[in-house]
Amino acid sequence: MRASFDLSLYLVLDPVQCGGHDAALTVARAALEGGVTLVQLRAPEWHKRAWFELSRALLPITRAHGVPFVINDHVDVALAVGADGVHIGQRDLPADAARRLLGPDALIGLSVSNLAETEDAARLAGIVDYLGAGPVYATPTKTDASAPCGIDGLATIVAAAHLPTVAIGGIQAHNAADVMRAKPAGLAVVSAICKAANPRDAAAALRATIAHAQI
Amino acid sequence: MRASFDLSLYLVLDPVQCGGHDAALTVARAALEGGVTLVQLRAPEWHKRAWFELSRALLPITRAHGVPFVINDHVDVALAVGADGVHIGQRDLPADAARRLLGPDALIGLSVSNLAETEDAARLAGIVDYLGAGPVYATPTKTDASAPCGIDGLATIVAAAHLPTVAIGGIQAHNAADVMRAKPAGLAVVSAICKAANPRDAAAALRATIAHAQI
Repeated sequence: MRASFDLSLYLVLDPVQCGGHDAALTVARAALEGGVTLVQLRAPEWHKRAWFELSRALLPITRAHGVPFVINDHVDVALAVGADGVHIGQRDLPADAARRLLGPDALIGLSVSNLAETEDAARLAGIVDYLGAGPVYATPTKTDASAPCGIDGLATIVAAAHLPTVAIGGIQAHNAADVMRAKPAGLAVVSAICKAANPRDAAAALRATIAHAQI
Repeated sequence: MRASFDLSLYLVLDPVQCGGHDAALTVARAALEGGVTLVQLRAPEWHKRAWFELSRALLPITRAHGVPFVINDHVDVALAVGADGVHIGQRDLPADAARRLLGPDALIGLSVSNLAETEDAARLAGIVDYLGAGPVYATPTKTDASAPCGIDGLATIVAAAHLPTVAIGGIQAHNAADVMRAKPAGLAVVSAICKAANPRDAAAALRATIAHAQI
């Protein structure tokens, strides 16, 4: 379990959306300058060698900002590069297996998409640090995602969760304030930053919207 | 590095070809009875939870036969279930990273498809235990595979290799004796056993062909 972390603005970095390895580094740097509080690497189309190389290049950047860097799904990549943790889904390695491999200090997040999965996750207190709830909206980013839960579904999950919960799925500048009404600990975005013309400004604007809602 | 292992008849178990989790266990049991000397799990279409569950069920079966069980690509699955090692490709985690994570006793294999990769692998003596060379023939099993090397290409790789080398790719009962003419340490098969009407008999027949060629 990680002593402290901030889910406010959680960047899911998709290097394909960014335009490749180098472009992903540029986006990550800009997004961190704009106020991103956590970075996850997710590259479902990529082989692990490319995950490994990009992760090794990202880690000094996130470290310089004091922001945790986690790997989607691949515990082995996280271990190989010394990342801060992983984010796992319901069909990835079980959370307790990931915790055993990563040790007590790693940051581990778990995706939930409905109330049943959220209630199951209550058993994982002490193993999992936070939940990722969604998709809130339908999204083309993740083709194997569950049915969207919507704002009301998100609010139900957040209220039932025993862990800090970040909302994910189709979150953009125009709907960020709406999603915050469900009282998640923060928002996770993919294309809203990875595909932004100016990732630094996009991150800063989202961060301001989230800060306003957190008052 | 594993003290001893036998590449003679290397089963790459594809649970989708077998017909699912339960069918894969049945195929593995039968193939081991027929004389398979090493089992690798490869399920590129599957999420890691399914790899984890099948691996946990396979391990007592391979152990009962004294045969090593390795995981394709996913070092984290191997660590989580306590498998005997991994088989990695050129685009997976680097071999030295896999060795660091798995420790000195694990069995680690590396795919090579040409002479340049084989010569590169010479630098990995002490890290990698064996090479998998191929595809010998074109195969529909692995859609992202390199160009086939053929029997002559295989013979060149085997002669250049500093490590025991198992041949893979399109190997079936009807061409097994031909492939053995290139003097590999053994043959790796997928559909020749996974899709056989009788996996035990298919394994036994291949084993006999290989043993005859090894005299």
